[in-house]
Amino acid sequence: MSQVYAARRALLRDCCAAAGSSAALISRPANVRYLAGAAPLGAALLLGPGEDVLFCAQPPTGEPGEGRLDELLRVSVLPASGADAAVAAADLAQAARSDSLAVEEHDLTVARHSALRSAAPRLRLTDLGHAVESQRLVKDEEEIACLRIAAEIADQALGELLESILVGRTERHLALELERRLVDHGADGPAFPTSVATGPHSGRPGHRPSDRRVEEGDFLSVCLGANYRGYRCEIGRTFVIGTTPADWQIELYDLVFAAQRAGRQALLPGAAYRDVDRAARQVLDSAGHGEALPPWTGHGVGLEIDEDPQLAPAAMGKLDACVPVTVEPGVHLPGRGGVRIDDTLVVRPEADGGPELLTITTKELLAL
Amino acid sequence: MSQVYAARRALLRDCCAAAGSSAALISRPANVRYLAGAAPLGAALLLGPGEDVLFCAQPPTGEPGEGRLDELLRVSVLPASGADAAVAAADLAQAARSDSLAVEEHDLTVARHSALRSAAPRLRLTDLGHAVESQRLVKDEEEIACLRIAAEIADQALGELLESILVGRTERHLALELERRLVDHGADGPAFPTSVATGPHSGRPGHRPSDRRVEEGDFLSVCLGANYRGYRCEIGRTFVIGTTPADWQIELYDLVFAAQRAGRQALLPGAAYRDVDRAARQVLDSAGHGEALPPWTGHGVGLEIDEDPQLAPAAMGKLDACVPVTVEPGVHLPGRGGVRIDDTLVVRPEADGGPELLTITTKELLAL
Repeated sequence: MSQVYAARRALLRDCCAAAGSSAALISRPANVRYLAGAAPLGAALLLGPGEDVLFCAQPPTGEPGEGRLDELLRVSVLPASGADAAVAAADLAQAARSDSLAVEEHDLTVARHSALRSAAPRLRLTDLGHAVESQRLVKDEEEIACLRIAAEIADQALGELLESILVGRTERHLALELERRLVDHGADGPAFPTSVATGPHSGRPGHRPSDRRVEEGDFLSVCLGANYRGYRCEIGRTFVIGTTPADWQIELYDLVFAAQRAGRQALLPGAAYRDVDRAARQVLDSAGHGEALPPWTGHGVGLEIDEDPQLAPAAMGKLDACVPVTVEPGVHLPGRGGVRIDDTLVVRPEADGGPELLTITTKELLAL
Repeated sequence: MSQVYAARRALLRDCCAAAGSSAALISRPANVRYLAGAAPLGAALLLGPGEDVLFCAQPPTGEPGEGRLDELLRVSVLPASGADAAVAAADLAQAARSDSLAVEEHDLTVARHSALRSAAPRLRLTDLGHAVESQRLVKDEEEIACLRIAAEIADQALGELLESILVGRTERHLALELERRLVDHGADGPAFPTSVATGPHSGRPGHRPSDRRVEEGDFLSVCLGANYRGYRCEIGRTFVIGTTPADWQIELYDLVFAAQRAGRQALLPGAAYRDVDRAARQVLDSAGHGEALPPWTGHGVGLEIDEDPQLAPAAMGKLDACVPVTVEPGVHLPGRGGVRIDDTLVVRPEADGGPELLTITTKELLAL
């Protein structure tokens, strides 16, 4: 793996050099992990001008959840508590006669940026922007393998829940049980806080589990994901509790299912982000649910659960092969509930069979 | 409660006015919650120059874990997705003819700060610094009541775990079970990721649970806390697995216990932070463990699990009454394991009986 990290860093260094910076400081944790293999708390990674150095308060412990630090990378443990890794990095960059340092202005706070300026006044600080995020967009096959395992784990956890008795249990307990099952099946942890929504809560994006209990006749919508070696996937399903779904439930479900299928089918290399969004959105829109829809119908996943690209009406850009994204339209009717269906897929060329579905739990409307 | 939030905001506005700013922008989530009652994701709170306004992408849902928004506060829901609450706030401040706006430079990123400057070029942006954090230092009796309940919940969860069979179970499973029990007893969630450390891992601060199983003869150290209405406590205990602790285990335990007691006894209004730290630290230091100690032996708790003050050798300042802190010295011997003992207490005058211990689980060395 060390070669992989070194190659990623070399690519970023080339990109910096082309922009006129001889050194770059990476502070955003997911970006540090992408380039160094692990991101101890508060770490900062200095690329060039000489050797690459990871600054951190405590050396990484090597625990599975933390990632494994690239062995080729020099690690500098900060001497004193309260010392800032970014400041130490700027200090070294100045000592190494770098004249400029590209920093992640979307991550560094104004206060830390000022501290960098004070510590290394001869350095010109420039903005690295989202260069590392752009590099992270297209995944290699090892990254996709991690996402595939993460999705398998989430499918297993969800499958087991469906076999248990649900009526009378609270949203919170169901969410905790799902998270325990994720870890049972080998996840480092949940990819994000598990959402379980019943009855009038169902279909609400990002609903926080409450003490409401599952009742007969409810819609139950669940959204969960596993974190496997840092890679995070997402699956969302909606079920009906009891034997026979009501007509409005079947109708709403079929509609959201059609929207989600349209979104999935639009996932091809070269498709504009906004066109994928539109494919899903217009199905719901033409049924009169346009106004209440969330601002996006999907997003990239990887070392973060919500990363580029965003599948939204105003998003700029086109899909590439090997970009994993979610497709997750939903409708929530205030006071009644609703439906969300959410998959993680990897964009693949049509010649390779089109989008690769990672989350394979059935999307039939199950009555539990 | 609304009066409480309004009074807190009035105090902060006075503090801003004294520093020459007619308006302030609060972006740090715990600070927003302290002043507004709740902090929806990405929210920003504008204080003055006219009315106070909370900007957020979605109105708060009123779920228990989220807090309850002050009803006296105006809420402005952002029109478009991707709109930045802080930018919208700066925009309004400029429209209301404010000439300057104090922002939290330790929270705002450089990129958001630039966006504020572009959106409201006539506003002078100043630094509010840690004004809200300072205001949060001394807790009122309602806040302490929340911490007291949080501590009770943690004590209950820990007590139940001790009654179960531990040998053969993994650190991860024990941690997940503790977190489930926290929620069972009414917590909104864990206050921080629960740490369970066995054998050679024991005594390591912030250890992430691994797949190591509990064995006979192990030290087992556990650190957990509950989040109750946003307020977070912390308790840490170390146990021995099996019937008879080894001599080195008893000796190390007694030493850490003596250090923790010395720290607790030093908690009085007017005591310097560094003196409390020294009281605990010198016990371990004189036994030859000085070099390996963490940089602090305790810290404040409240809406965040790690807030001011820090009990550390270089910390400046003195304790006030009604400041809740942890006292948590520990020793970890690489390869062998170690001991941590951690309580949450509230500083009280001697006339009132001295420090109030919130986490009351026994600190005897239990053999489980």
